[in-house]
Amino acid sequence: MTEKIVLAYSGGLDTSVAIGWIHDATGADVIACAVDVGQGGEDLEVIRQRALDCGAVEAYVADARDEFAEEYCMPALQANALYMDAYPNVSAISRPVITKHLVKAAKKFGATTVAHGCTGKGNDQVRFEVSITSLAPELKCIAPVRDLALTRDKAIEYAERKGLPIETTKHNPFSIDQNVWGRAIETGFLEDIWNEPTKDVFSYTDDPAFPPVADEVVISFERGVPVAIDGRSVSPLEAIQELNRRAGAQGIGRIDIVEDRLVGIKSREVYEAPGAMTLITAHQELERVTLEREQARFKRTVSDRWTDLVYDGQWFSPLKKSLDAFLSDTQRYVSGDIRLTLHGGRATVTGRRTETGLYDFNLATYDEGDTFDQGSARGFIDIYGLAAKQAAARDVAFGNGEDLDAASEAQA
Amino acid sequence: MTEKIVLAYSGGLDTSVAIGWIHDATGADVIACAVDVGQGGEDLEVIRQRALDCGAVEAYVADARDEFAEEYCMPALQANALYMDAYPNVSAISRPVITKHLVKAAKKFGATTVAHGCTGKGNDQVRFEVSITSLAPELKCIAPVRDLALTRDKAIEYAERKGLPIETTKHNPFSIDQNVWGRAIETGFLEDIWNEPTKDVFSYTDDPAFPPVADEVVISFERGVPVAIDGRSVSPLEAIQELNRRAGAQGIGRIDIVEDRLVGIKSREVYEAPGAMTLITAHQELERVTLEREQARFKRTVSDRWTDLVYDGQWFSPLKKSLDAFLSDTQRYVSGDIRLTLHGGRATVTGRRTETGLYDFNLATYDEGDTFDQGSARGFIDIYGLAAKQAAARDVAFGNGEDLDAASEAQA
Amino acid sequence: MTEKIVLAYSGGLDTSVAIGWIHDATGADVIACAVDVGQGGEDLEVIRQRALDCGAVEAYVADARDEFAEEYCMPALQANALYMDAYPNVSAISRPVITKHLVKAAKKFGATTVAHGCTGKGNDQVRFEVSITSLAPELKCIAPVRDLALTRDKAIEYAERKGLPIETTKHNPFSIDQNVWGRAIETGFLEDIWNEPTKDVFSYTDDPAFPPVADEVVISFERGVPVAIDGRSVSPLEAIQELNRRAGAQGIGRIDIVEDRLVGIKSREVYEAPGAMTLITAHQELERVTLEREQARFKRTVSDRWTDLVYDGQWFSPLKKSLDAFLSDTQRYVSGDIRLTLHGGRATVTGRRTETGLYDFNLATYDEGDTFDQGSARGFIDIYGLAAKQAAARDVAFGNGEDLDAASEAQA
Amino acid sequence: MTEKIVLAYSGGLDTSVAIGWIHDATGADVIACAVDVGQGGEDLEVIRQRALDCGAVEAYVADARDEFAEEYCMPALQANALYMDAYPNVSAISRPVITKHLVKAAKKFGATTVAHGCTGKGNDQVRFEVSITSLAPELKCIAPVRDLALTRDKAIEYAERKGLPIETTKHNPFSIDQNVWGRAIETGFLEDIWNEPTKDVFSYTDDPAFPPVADEVVISFERGVPVAIDGRSVSPLEAIQELNRRAGAQGIGRIDIVEDRLVGIKSREVYEAPGAMTLITAHQELERVTLEREQARFKRTVSDRWTDLVYDGQWFSPLKKSLDAFLSDTQRYVSGDIRLTLHGGRATVTGRRTETGLYDFNLATYDEGDTFDQGSARGFIDIYGLAAKQAAARDVAFGNGEDLDAASEAQA
Repeated sequence: MTEKIVLAYSGGLDTSVAIGWIHDATGADVIACAVDVGQGGEDLEVIRQRALDCGAVEAYVADARDEFAEEYCMPALQANALYMDAYPNVSAISRPVITKHLVKAAKKFGATTVAHGCTGKGNDQVRFEVSITSLAPELKCIAPVRDLALTRDKAIEYAERKGLPIETTKHNPFSIDQNVWGRAIETGFLEDIWNEPTKDVFSYTDDPAFPPVADEVVISFERGVPVAIDGRSVSPLEAIQELNRRAGAQGIGRIDIVEDRLVGIKSREVYEAPGAMTLITAHQELERVTLEREQARFKRTVSDRWTDLVYDGQWFSPLKKSLDAFLSDTQRYVSGDIRLTLHGGRATVTGRRTETGLYDFNLATYDEGDTFDQGSARGFIDIYGLAAKQAAARDVAFGNGEDLDAASEAQA
Repeated sequence: MTEKIVLAYSGGLDTSVAIGWIHDATGADVIACAVDVGQGGEDLEVIRQRALDCGAVEAYVADARDEFAEEYCMPALQANALYMDAYPNVSAISRPVITKHLVKAAKKFGATTVAHGCTGKGNDQVRFEVSITSLAPELKCIAPVRDLALTRDKAIEYAERKGLPIETTKHNPFSIDQNVWGRAIETGFLEDIWNEPTKDVFSYTDDPAFPPVADEVVISFERGVPVAIDGRSVSPLEAIQELNRRAGAQGIGRIDIVEDRLVGIKSREVYEAPGAMTLITAHQELERVTLEREQARFKRTVSDRWTDLVYDGQWFSPLKKSLDAFLSDTQRYVSGDIRLTLHGGRATVTGRRTETGLYDFNLATYDEGDTFDQGSARGFIDIYGLAAKQAAARDVAFGNGEDLDAASEAQA
Repeated sequence: MTEKIVLAYSGGLDTSVAIGWIHDATGADVIACAVDVGQGGEDLEVIRQRALDCGAVEAYVADARDEFAEEYCMPALQANALYMDAYPNVSAISRPVITKHLVKAAKKFGATTVAHGCTGKGNDQVRFEVSITSLAPELKCIAPVRDLALTRDKAIEYAERKGLPIETTKHNPFSIDQNVWGRAIETGFLEDIWNEPTKDVFSYTDDPAFPPVADEVVISFERGVPVAIDGRSVSPLEAIQELNRRAGAQGIGRIDIVEDRLVGIKSREVYEAPGAMTLITAHQELERVTLEREQARFKRTVSDRWTDLVYDGQWFSPLKKSLDAFLSDTQRYVSGDIRLTLHGGRATVTGRRTETGLYDFNLATYDEGDTFDQGSARGFIDIYGLAAKQAAARDVAFGNGEDLDAASEAQA
Repeated sequence: MTEKIVLAYSGGLDTSVAIGWIHDATGADVIACAVDVGQGGEDLEVIRQRALDCGAVEAYVADARDEFAEEYCMPALQANALYMDAYPNVSAISRPVITKHLVKAAKKFGATTVAHGCTGKGNDQVRFEVSITSLAPELKCIAPVRDLALTRDKAIEYAERKGLPIETTKHNPFSIDQNVWGRAIETGFLEDIWNEPTKDVFSYTDDPAFPPVADEVVISFERGVPVAIDGRSVSPLEAIQELNRRAGAQGIGRIDIVEDRLVGIKSREVYEAPGAMTLITAHQELERVTLEREQARFKRTVSDRWTDLVYDGQWFSPLKKSLDAFLSDTQRYVSGDIRLTLHGGRATVTGRRTETGLYDFNLATYDEGDTFDQGSARGFIDIYGLAAKQAAARDVAFGNGEDLDAASEAQA
């Protein structure tokens, strides 16, 4: 029986050529698998037909937008996941959901191998392959660009020679990956890290320097998940989409960093994530009102590990699951409304309102109604500072005390 | 011999009254100590004279602006210190430098006690008192507002009755603390956390919604410290001051959060820190280019601990010193230029240039000149993913594998 | 109506006197509450009667041994909780379960206050009071020794004067706290930290220097909890009790450390925990076989935080609950048998057997049957070491490379 | 010019054969490099001569015992480095010092490549190769066993055919690596993890079940480094050697674990480290007396990272250097004497004595002389527990409070 290979199919030139290229190199039947994670562009049925026209024996297409929003974007939001304090793991969280469908297709059609279009120096090859063997340890992986010498030039030549129904002339100067959580742009002149991104780099966001009138929005959360915008109920997918549109119009969520890849090199990356960044901004502030201090402090450590782990392709790893258990528990009271002004590249929180918060006006106020017992403070300070005091006395005794003579004084 | 008490003196109503109030309550001679940390306002000599006019037996004044910038702001910058991912520890880092001068004054004049103007429910009482006993374990502390029932109303009455040379009519609706690293505003109508700050809250920053023309700036760093702006050499103090001015004009560095105080309550705080936030933005990006990945990842853990510890008043603690040793070592190669556009509330990095970076064009590029050996990737992925693969096989064997049936599919 | 106060009652001199002492000082009715956490000694009914004879208006007694073992000791075991890498939190985990009963008694009898016998310089006052207000924020706390000047001498005098049915002559040179998880001994000549504990310090353990014949034991775990010993089913309580007996006979589980108290001082503590230490030893090794590497590594960070937090009296805090969620998730596959030899103070693991482990003989072996693909290693090393290599090249370029000349050589 | 390859040479069969094997496969001249890290066995000059007799064009030998003890074992001691809470990184810390000499030899003789005897599935290949390229990014690496198919059988056949002056009959059932910090034993029947080690596995330690009379030892430290034993000055090397002898005679320091290798598999490892484990036990206790609490707590996080990083072969990485800076700073006051009893497999601390400690008898004692102000406790507890109290009140309000009904009660 002919071996079957499931190919992660985008509908573009490279993966369209890969259908035949893999068949030629391996003799296997190729099944194209296209997954909609909100990347926009062509209709899934158009993509399905092109796959078949390019030689796929089967085409599997899936609208995974709600699944992606609910099971991948929402955990990222609850973790406030920003890799290197900046990047909301846009591509990193889409790979596992795509993988889930690749593996489902492989099982459905009895394939032994999964193929993807990644190169050999990026993160996504690792994310795909580690995810694939984590879901189905028996599956093999292949990457035509990396393993079968499928270059851009060869792809164009192949498509023209075979008369594939795909455009070969358009050349995008950048490498782009996009989904509902955001958009990633790399390569081209951005590889010179002194260069500023030009206007044509951006698509999800308008120029923040020339914004429309300010847009006030109230986002309502329940247990760390957005459930309403301006009082209208929304699904997670709708929340992201609406905020992509509204925050995008204000130029919010542009990111431009040099980033540590999993494979040990640094690369220049530009991102746009208007909805994601707006949601994270709101969620962070709601957590400030609802999480207990020590829980909030340790959650940063957990979130950092979660974010690095997901960036590093370990979505389906045991540690990821255990971190999820921690994060999920922290969200119990992360419910309430956050009001923001979206304007000129800034998502500014202007109000918080919650039934489940720990902000207590009567403890915080300096006006009448103050219930805080200031008399406790002296005892607290005595004991709280005791260890530091003893350590300081030791420093003084051994001549390691602070150099007070170094302090300047403008005495007359 | 009459006991002597050193009082942290601002020149304002409360501490001017406190001079006599403390004397009346304790019989001690009061020495006023005023420290310039860039808070602006009156001249130190004016403040000195007022202290004496209000009954201080001595007045100690110090221009600590360079000391503060170099020894307190720069370590905070190197740590990218943002408490709760937001607040650059503006007040938290000024308390230890002021304390250093209070203790110096106490030693100079033979005082046994240090007094400060803090209330009993804030962070600063803890920061002052823990710092004081850490520098001089033998000193006692007293806080007239907390310990001697000195209220605002009593202060006004006292000043008028004694004819103190200080204005008693002006009433600021907010409680304000400011220095060259930033400005903190709290209380008043901000205690209702659904309220948006009004324009009168701000002083260091203009409205970002109506910015002047964009301002491009190049900040040059050596070992994590700014040494030049647009090619002109600057001291740390000058760097902060210039960026306060230029970034402030663009409305950069406004912060509005609900914050976990050390004393166990949450409070609403508004900050302005145009220079600090611009410097941190630039420094973070320079670190992304110059720090090795694992070093950068663990530095976040260290910085979080540093930031919490400093917020919590432990500047002079043993752990703080050890964390400093780590942080200092990481800055060895954090040298180079960062170009930013300051505009409309945004400090946007647009370029990085460094001799000591780890970004390697030839490793990163997808164009000609690529030196990355993609052939290594397969071996890497096999071993890198091996543990996850085995764990996944176990999950499958015990029926705990991912639920692939849950994945949606839009098959025709 | 007369106010009611629930007193944590041990049956000993101090808390017997406290019944009347509190009544005299406050006018309140005192309800004695005694909780059996496996501390041994008198029967609960004897203790109940003594409380009533000493003036308590009610006596509440509870056998909480199974509850303590299942809900407090088992989580500590799953966390491998060793404070300062040494102390299995013996007293720290008993305070919350006792508190639960104190609060239950307070609610049952309508008390407004809970009293405990702790001094003002230890950890337990904090653990009790923070736990009490965490379970019932409306309850007040009082400590006769700390707040009502109840000293040992006064207690003896009071008991004799009132003719309380309690022995006043026996004087233990140490302060002791014990339960089924272990036994804590402090004060007396142990306060000189150069002194070695004498034989009379110990009660749960025999001298390890003169052990009986070695004792082999097989402990079977399911999800991190012991379920059988030598093939016989046991409850958690029975497992601890049996191992207390068998490991105690071998002198296992003696601990002697200088410890950081929550209140900022260091104290000398001696512990005996034969069952706890044997279980932790076995559980740790079973985790080494069953946890995935990264999960195991991060679990140490979580366990450290859990252990410190519980030591610090925050059993009922939000962070503790979130950490529990993480820890619980890690135990899914911690099932199997651990064989140990108990002998002469040592609990030595000699074998592990599990269906759910990740040890794979065929991957590990160097003999025939090896399934590990050594060909992957080169690619792995190239990419794994790439970041370090680049950093090293930078060190060399800037003259900061390792000093190879410092390496010694014994060339002829 | 003929290429030159430096070979890490042990004097044993495999590396003796590798000299010719590499030459045959590559045409390169082979330079043997033997480094004494305290592994015992043959004299360096004997090994040098054998290398030359086996065909090496040059032989480089170095006595690195003091260098290893001072620059590698002492940092490991200061970190209390125990991988997976058990293994003192015996082999992991010897690889970098051996590498340093390999690179030095390569530079001295103008070699382009370094060869080592490791297989393709262990940690040491990674440690060697990452260390080599970290010290000399231009050097290449080769491993005859992994890359040139040099099996044991082929080695025996080759040695006999070429008449090499090396014994080929002796067959050790285990794979062994040893140095002054300890000894590692793996493979053979130990690969069945239910098997107990047999007596022939051990060499550094006698059977702890039949110990000689107890041995009391006092170890004096300065800044975390042993400087005297029983009052006699010792170098680090001498300290380890003497304690290897004395603790080894008592059977101290045997370790038997299943371990997570860097390459993603678990393996069974047995270790002996009598000196290392005794020193770590003493050093840990001295730290408990001398480190401030928060410093000690964070040091565990740093030490865990240090230990994992060193195990993972990143000795020369930037993060390792920064962690060293932290650790070094913590050792400032880790000076004093620790008295231990060595007996029957146990190294038991029985006393501590230090001028630089933070244990304060007058704060700790419950006897006369107590200087601790118990009156501070109430205020401390009120504020310390405030956040937990508010969180608990929220739990109660939302029906998520602790289930007090679940608490058992043995009421009559």
